[in-house]
Formats: sequence, C-alpha cells, structure tokens
Amino acid sequence: MSQGRAVVLLSGGLDSATCLALARATGQHCFALSINYGQRHVAELAAARDIAHELGAAECREAKVDLGQFGGSALTDDTLTVPHAPSAGIPITYVPARNTVFLALATAWAEVLGATEIHCGVNAVDYSGYPDCRPEFIAAFETVARLGTKAGVEGAALKIRTPLIAWSKAEIIRRGIALGVDYARTVSCYQADSDGRACGNCDACRLRRDGFIAAGVIDPTRYQ
Amino acid sequence: MSQGRAVVLLSGGLDSATCLALARATGQHCFALSINYGQRHVAELAAARDIAHELGAAECREAKVDLGQFGGSALTDDTLTVPHAPSAGIPITYVPARNTVFLALATAWAEVLGATEIHCGVNAVDYSGYPDCRPEFIAAFETVARLGTKAGVEGAALKIRTPLIAWSKAEIIRRGIALGVDYARTVSCYQADSDGRACGNCDACRLRRDGFIAAGVIDPTRYQ
Repeated sequence: MSQGRAVVLLSGGLDSATCLALARATGQHCFALSINYGQRHVAELAAARDIAHELGAAECREAKVDLGQFGGSALTDDTLTVPHAPSAGIPITYVPARNTVFLALATAWAEVLGATEIHCGVNAVDYSGYPDCRPEFIAAFETVARLGTKAGVEGAALKIRTPLIAWSKAEIIRRGIALGVDYARTVSCYQADSDGRACGNCDACRLRRDGFIAAGVIDPTRYQ
Repeated sequence: MSQGRAVVLLSGGLDSATCLALARATGQHCFALSINYGQRHVAELAAARDIAHELGAAECREAKVDLGQFGGSALTDDTLTVPHAPSAGIPITYVPARNTVFLALATAWAEVLGATEIHCGVNAVDYSGYPDCRPEFIAAFETVARLGTKAGVEGAALKIRTPLIAWSKAEIIRRGIALGVDYARTVSCYQADSDGRACGNCDACRLRRDGFIAAGVIDPTRYQ
C-alpha cells in the first residue's frame, strides 16, 4: 500500500469520484481539488465536497478561476445552448484549455504539498471529442510538470495518473461500485439544477445513463 | 507585417512590457493578459493596464486565480521574507507552477480569440533560477497547447513566442528603448509599494538595476 500524497482532480462527477476511490484504495493520502471555473452546473462543486468527505480525502480544496470570461463554451456561457444530441467533431460543451488549466493548478498544489502524483479522471473512450482527454495530451502535460517545477528539476517528477482513460463508462461504474462509490451523490449533468438533479438530455447524461445500462446497474441518478 | 492576433502575457514588469512592444512592432493585434494570482506586489497590475494602453494593445484583460492559497512562495505568502541577496538553487520567490498556470490561461483565451501566438517575456539568462523560464519548458508547453486544444487538433497549433529568452537584461532594455518603452511605468520589484515604487533590494530590483547600468541607460525606476 502506497502512503504517498496525491492531488486528485475532483469535479463531482462520476468519473472523478471513481478516480478518487481508486486512489484511496491504494492507500494514498488524497488531496481533492475542485475548480470553480464559471461552469453553469455549479451543483457539481457541492457534490465534490460531499464525495471527498465520504471517500476520506485528507482535504478538499476549491480553486476559483473564471474561464467564463474568455467564453467559447456552452458550459460557461448561458447564451449558448447545451445540445441534446451528439454532434460531429468537437462539441460546443468543450471548454477551451480546461484540462490544461486544471492540471496546471493541480501541479501548483502538488508541488507545495510534496505530492508525487496527480490523479485525473479523464476518459478517452467516452470523451465526447474533447482533445484534452487524450493520452498524448496527458503525456505532454507530464513533461511540462517535470520541466516547469522545482520538484521536477530536483528529480522528484510528478506523475499524472489517469486510470480511467481506456475504460468504458460501464467498466468505470462497475469498478466504482466495487469500491463503494455512491453514484447518487455524483453530478455529471451539464445543466444540473441547484440541487444537483440531472436534465437527462445532454451528452453527459446520455453517456452516464448508457453506462449504467451497459453495466447492468440500476441508475441512481436524480433526474429533474 | 503580420496582422494576426497574439495573446501577450503582461505582468507589468520590464520584460513583459518589452515583449509587448516587440509584438506590436510586428503589427500584431495584441491581447494583453495580466494575472492577479495573489502576488504581494499587486501594483504591477496597475502598471500592466497602463502599459497595455500606452503600447496600443487591442485589449487588456485581468484574470484572477488565487495561487496564494497553495502557498510555498515568498511572493504570495506575507509570512515569508523576500531575500535581499541571491540564493543558491531555486529561490523562495519561485511561485509553484506559475508559468504553467499563466500559459494555460493564455491558451484558453488565445483559442477563443482565434489567436495563433502567445508571447511571453520569460528570460533564461537572468531567470533567477526559475525552472519555468527555460526553453525546454516552453517547448514542452507548446506541445501541450497543440494536443490539448480544439485549434491544435484542427491544425492551427498555437506558437509560444519567447523573444527575450536568450537576451541579457541590458539587451532587453536597449531593444525596448529603441521601441519607445517607458520603463518608468514598469514595476519589477517583488515588494513594490501600492504606488509601484521599488524596494531597491530584492533580486528583481538588483537584476533590473544592473541591467540599466550594463545598457548604459539612466535607471528611471521610482524607488521607495
């Protein structure tokens, strides 16, 4: 069992909750980092705090950075509509450079904590066409974290762990349930209401619902 | 003359002001991005707005992200003392992952703007031992920006320009003066007062003063 420190990016959704449960199962001291980036589905931040506590994170920190001021995404701009059907190419729910910003903030905290790993629940199978969920992006960021930090220069390079990256949504759910994740607490919906109830129509809801069906597990999602 | 769009990271210091002047001299439409990251020398942000206007930036945006909450640097933690003499190794004024966070935010804005370049005034000669001012770090980040953005996937990869990276401070000052930069407006000091007057003692002040001496230019810095 590893007793090291890890920063775990925790959105409050299904994938990152599973990612935290996996890290906890290896015995790591987990420091959960949630980012308030101006997302319309702010209910996921309350879910993140709840999940971090439930899964025994050593600390749960919320960092605020206003990506909405740059615009360009339906997730941060209320004047753009979240689509109800899958789109060709990279969808309008893509938030420019979001995972680059998230990993950069996780790197900053990891360096101060003396953490040796960052865990991130990105998934390249059900990734909705987001470029910053691909393995080659993660590998490139790991190089940045090694070259751009004091820890990296001094020989303690950060590892970026993405255990879910090649799993299907069904596999993620099965692994999470085996680890005791309560998915009723998680919020995946791009336009969840203030109580965290899902719309049932957006891309994130569709992927999630299909995942529960494929996993043969009753969907505990609270719908609007 | 290039007529493209560039995001220019503008701290309000000597290097980034010169960087903006160089970009403007090539005819680029420059979008200046300043980051309020919890730095103690917040006077540099007012200087940045002033310089952006003076040098004809198309827009000057301030993004807020609290790196101070993570601690670990004398620049964001008032309980740590800014040293008056150069230190061995990476100094305590290093802010964990600062340039990674800055470049990530610049990438986000660049993507929304359709900008093809990010300009950053990092300098590897007088870099005070900061790992995230080295050419290999910048090259690694360019790969991240290419792989992690919609623009990069669609073939319009962002270039990260660091024209000052191999110049001495004296050379930067000479080039800036030739382009009309008014260095009296810039704030480099790590503990500038609220009016932007420099302490004259910190590492940044020392590098800057030595630069003016080596360039044979009268130092216009306003000292406390």
